[in-house]
Amino acid sequence: MIIQLKNNLEEQKLKNIEQYVSGAGYSVSLVNTQFRKYFIALGNVKHDIRKIGSLDGVADIHYVDEAYQLVSRMWKTSHSIIDLGNEVKIGDNNFCIMAGPCSIESEELLIETADFLKANGVKIMRGGVFKPRTSPYAYRGGGIESLKMFHRVCKERSLKIITEVMDISQIDDMQPYIDIFQVGTRNAQNFNLLHALGKCNKAVMLKRGMSGTIEELLQAAEYVFSSGNEKIILCERGIRTFEKTYRNTLDLNAVTILKDKTHLPVIVDPSHGVGIRKYVSRMALASMVAGADGVIIETHSVPEEAISDGQQTLNFLEMQQLINKANALKSSLLK
Amino acid sequence: MIIQLKNNLEEQKLKNIEQYVSGAGYSVSLVNTQFRKYFIALGNVKHDIRKIGSLDGVADIHYVDEAYQLVSRMWKTSHSIIDLGNEVKIGDNNFCIMAGPCSIESEELLIETADFLKANGVKIMRGGVFKPRTSPYAYRGGGIESLKMFHRVCKERSLKIITEVMDISQIDDMQPYIDIFQVGTRNAQNFNLLHALGKCNKAVMLKRGMSGTIEELLQAAEYVFSSGNEKIILCERGIRTFEKTYRNTLDLNAVTILKDKTHLPVIVDPSHGVGIRKYVSRMALASMVAGADGVIIETHSVPEEAISDGQQTLNFLEMQQLINKANALKSSLLK
Amino acid sequence: MIIQLKNNLEEQKLKNIEQYVSGAGYSVSLVNTQFRKYFIALGNVKHDIRKIGSLDGVADIHYVDEAYQLVSRMWKTSHSIIDLGNEVKIGDNNFCIMAGPCSIESEELLIETADFLKANGVKIMRGGVFKPRTSPYAYRGGGIESLKMFHRVCKERSLKIITEVMDISQIDDMQPYIDIFQVGTRNAQNFNLLHALGKCNKAVMLKRGMSGTIEELLQAAEYVFSSGNEKIILCERGIRTFEKTYRNTLDLNAVTILKDKTHLPVIVDPSHGVGIRKYVSRMALASMVAGADGVIIETHSVPEEAISDGQQTLNFLEMQQLINKANALKSSLLK
Amino acid sequence: MIIQLKNNLEEQKLKNIEQYVSGAGYSVSLVNTQFRKYFIALGNVKHDIRKIGSLDGVADIHYVDEAYQLVSRMWKTSHSIIDLGNEVKIGDNNFCIMAGPCSIESEELLIETADFLKANGVKIMRGGVFKPRTSPYAYRGGGIESLKMFHRVCKERSLKIITEVMDISQIDDMQPYIDIFQVGTRNAQNFNLLHALGKCNKAVMLKRGMSGTIEELLQAAEYVFSSGNEKIILCERGIRTFEKTYRNTLDLNAVTILKDKTHLPVIVDPSHGVGIRKYVSRMALASMVAGADGVIIETHSVPEEAISDGQQTLNFLEMQQLINKANALKSSLLK
Repeated sequence: MIIQLKNNLEEQKLKNIEQYVSGAGYSVSLVNTQFRKYFIALGNVKHDIRKIGSLDGVADIHYVDEAYQLVSRMWKTSHSIIDLGNEVKIGDNNFCIMAGPCSIESEELLIETADFLKANGVKIMRGGVFKPRTSPYAYRGGGIESLKMFHRVCKERSLKIITEVMDISQIDDMQPYIDIFQVGTRNAQNFNLLHALGKCNKAVMLKRGMSGTIEELLQAAEYVFSSGNEKIILCERGIRTFEKTYRNTLDLNAVTILKDKTHLPVIVDPSHGVGIRKYVSRMALASMVAGADGVIIETHSVPEEAISDGQQTLNFLEMQQLINKANALKSSLLK
Repeated sequence: MIIQLKNNLEEQKLKNIEQYVSGAGYSVSLVNTQFRKYFIALGNVKHDIRKIGSLDGVADIHYVDEAYQLVSRMWKTSHSIIDLGNEVKIGDNNFCIMAGPCSIESEELLIETADFLKANGVKIMRGGVFKPRTSPYAYRGGGIESLKMFHRVCKERSLKIITEVMDISQIDDMQPYIDIFQVGTRNAQNFNLLHALGKCNKAVMLKRGMSGTIEELLQAAEYVFSSGNEKIILCERGIRTFEKTYRNTLDLNAVTILKDKTHLPVIVDPSHGVGIRKYVSRMALASMVAGADGVIIETHSVPEEAISDGQQTLNFLEMQQLINKANALKSSLLK
Repeated sequence: MIIQLKNNLEEQKLKNIEQYVSGAGYSVSLVNTQFRKYFIALGNVKHDIRKIGSLDGVADIHYVDEAYQLVSRMWKTSHSIIDLGNEVKIGDNNFCIMAGPCSIESEELLIETADFLKANGVKIMRGGVFKPRTSPYAYRGGGIESLKMFHRVCKERSLKIITEVMDISQIDDMQPYIDIFQVGTRNAQNFNLLHALGKCNKAVMLKRGMSGTIEELLQAAEYVFSSGNEKIILCERGIRTFEKTYRNTLDLNAVTILKDKTHLPVIVDPSHGVGIRKYVSRMALASMVAGADGVIIETHSVPEEAISDGQQTLNFLEMQQLINKANALKSSLLK
Repeated sequence: MIIQLKNNLEEQKLKNIEQYVSGAGYSVSLVNTQFRKYFIALGNVKHDIRKIGSLDGVADIHYVDEAYQLVSRMWKTSHSIIDLGNEVKIGDNNFCIMAGPCSIESEELLIETADFLKANGVKIMRGGVFKPRTSPYAYRGGGIESLKMFHRVCKERSLKIITEVMDISQIDDMQPYIDIFQVGTRNAQNFNLLHALGKCNKAVMLKRGMSGTIEELLQAAEYVFSSGNEKIILCERGIRTFEKTYRNTLDLNAVTILKDKTHLPVIVDPSHGVGIRKYVSRMALASMVAGADGVIIETHSVPEEAISDGQQTLNFLEMQQLINKANALKSSLLK
């Protein structure tokens, strides 16, 4: 059960409510986000919840019959919109494209990519500076210095930045330079990291775990929300199955279902979701029809020379064609 | 290697070619389909294949570097079109909708469904008369008598019929009454059945195995083709994974990849592919964008009363809306 | 619910019972096996089942709360023993080893293998004559003539024979020459084949489907039993997962659980279950401890020259060492 | 390639070697563990490696043809033994049992469990104080204060402690009180955590990821080793598959293969690996035969009252029986 509290509630009234709800037998957690306060009350309790609804200080009350609460659409039926400022919004029916290289490899690549994206109407640039790599001997990204360069170049072009955070210790250093923290598939259930990101006021995009269920993804989002941060984006990036023709099995069922189960925006990553360059664009378009609020795409001026993920990276011409097709499809879907 | 032979080739010339190719070290199989004859020559042999190309009676020769040969697009770059007669074709860019109930339960249901489909421009009706059921105590379908009734009702309305064949012994009885034999996911590697269907002159739709790889599906098609039947349709119907929110994981990556690897038409079954009624239509539309040549959908006048699969079956209103959306999307994709 | 009937029951009494049970609201199926007769009564019915138990002609009655009935241990708590004659039994706590080549390739191989097995106390020989092959161009086995040779050689040495049946049409021809019909993983849900094998009086070993659940395997066994054949053996042979270091994921959890859920004997196939020669023996021994009633192992005098499955086939020395270790382990487990 | 350096090597000689190897075209990393120093040299370089072997300061040189290097048995053919002091060793053929409750719930439970384990010869106690929980509203463990209590009780009884670390920030606080850091399945690819644990001098047990491949587990171990810590234990705890009868699919193939591919000890967790109490003991014993160096088992005086994982937890009687059976099996395996 979600008990939404009135704004600017006095401490004493808050305590009264907590006491009443605990007294009724619920286990109660206070959630304090950048936008408002809630109590989450859980437990198999028989209680006339209208009585809670009529307590002084309660703005609204919702019974949610799912393992996750605050991210459920049973409570909030409208779409959550993540506002990054400067008219850049995610989840407002304005299909959103994030693009950029796998890694921020050099200033030259950075500038040419940023210019290319800007010229083609893309408003959010992706690029890794902390790279999770299976082998300890592989390139792990340019680190915080690369991020500062990334930020400078994007700021000059009014581009927003999404990049991966791998550890709590990186959060403070990264925060001034990014717009969206990306949590990678390998950290999908790194609960301490999720909790720490819940204490920030920057948007967080959560990738689904390699073998993460839809419910686990929603519970991960519940961690961030219940720790205080409502600005959450979900990302379907393919799951691990027996099929080896492609890199991952892009699960578009999950997109359709997530859009039904939660009010949070859902982004699809077809670059990792299929992992083979020539199939990425088509899967990006299919994602739109499945209901995604946007896609995140790897692009590079010369994919063949990319340090990582070149085999699934579009060149600028392919990226431009995808943007055009996405725009055309969007118009026809909105008709 | 595929050696395409000239039409009406004399027996002696055929033998000469076979002898030459065997002599060069290849293992040779003669394939004799309803349309033409081929030799398939396999083996790690170094040979100037132009010499084979210039043999008397050889129409064309193609080197195919894949486990499957005749179904590969490396050989036949154009799309194969399955012509069912009366202007009903699959694979000709004219997105095809097959629909109908899970089972042919009664004449009443059959007639109202056939009328509904006819009125909405659907030209191929599905409906099971032999039902594979996990439990031996469950309803196994109406059998051949149901099929005859199915045929009579469809013939009066110029509807084509697709229905599942479960065993070689059913083929002869069914053949006069059907247009497409459907091979179910549980028989995806029933090689004897595939071979027997290769001896028919009716179209065959092969469903992907529950945990069948893309390559295994193509090899299954190769069985049918190499046994003599070129009229093959592939069907993606979802694969078995760890995720249990839905029935199967619809693999639209596979659709995109199949359209690249083979010249055969690809149909998607979102009814089984997601298995939950309210998500079926959206996944059907996403399939179109992923490149499918059509969809097969379960529909019933009162899904709640269907003997089987009711939870994934559209009612007529939902079906009609899906048809309208598919038509609109088709127009915009063709622009 | 299983209603076990008295032997030699008059037709009229049988009808009376059926009428009574149907009248009470159950859906009733008569099962007539080589050993006795049963009614299976299904349905959500509130009825005092003791009344059924006291009907004239009813020997015993069991309420089974599972999707499968006759194969459940809820009904029959003792182990079923499959008696092949000449003191060869499966399921009697006497750990059983079946071994032999993937294919019956030649008389020479057959004789040397049979001699080797006989000398080492193995009483059941395996060997394929009808081979399911993914590619239509691969070797499909020696067919019925190979089986006759197989039978002759084994008869002379009092060895029992297990071999795969792929299609209903092969059953009659094979029956005189085999002791156990093996149903392969690709036919695990070929319900027509299962039904037809239920009409035979030979033992049937059912391999689990590549992605078959434990319950589906039990339901497959229920098909055979309810069609009339109680002589059923289950076989765990590895499932398909994301891991590709080995061929299949041998599921020993399933062995332990099957032994708990059903009275039928359970055999493990570590040759396919791991698929790499040097790991086969260890997995065979682990299977014993997990509770298996036996193993089926691929062995060949020169695995490197085997037509198929050589990479997972033990040579005779390795096979002999495995037999010795299995005997030692058996003694210590029985202490 | 692993270049093992002589002990107490002068800085200048070390630089000379690095320069030579880099000059030959390799990418070189220095690894400095608690035991010795190595260079890891990677790259597709044609070079007579004997020349490197003869450089001043090189103790030994090994060519390893795998993605992981230092954890490979291609280099170190003997078993690594993790010595925890007081004669408690893992990997020395002395099958090791770790046991204890899922969570350290109370001092009372702690004492009775420690006494029980001590009395039955178990030398390593498990128990969670930081609990990864899917829901943010679930109990997350007693934290550092519980760990201090855990340590006090175990120290009095000479028991070693293994417990889970979830985040880098916990390492320093935990280190004085534990003997083995456990890395959970959800952190199996938390590379920053692995790197930080590589800087400690405590043993680390790495659980395989829920859908982690065998190679990914070995690469995770390579992270710890190459960061400076050789004291690594691997743990198979079941993988996520389509089968839902049990909690996870315990992969004993992986145990056999890991013992072949790496010199590190391998522990099996059958409590999570099957997840159902009545099957845990049998799977523990099967693990021994598959080659495991030990097992980790959840036990509790009253499993029905455990805060978490009660359904897979043995009571003391069951635990005692398992210990006895394991001892008996060990004797017979060693014969």
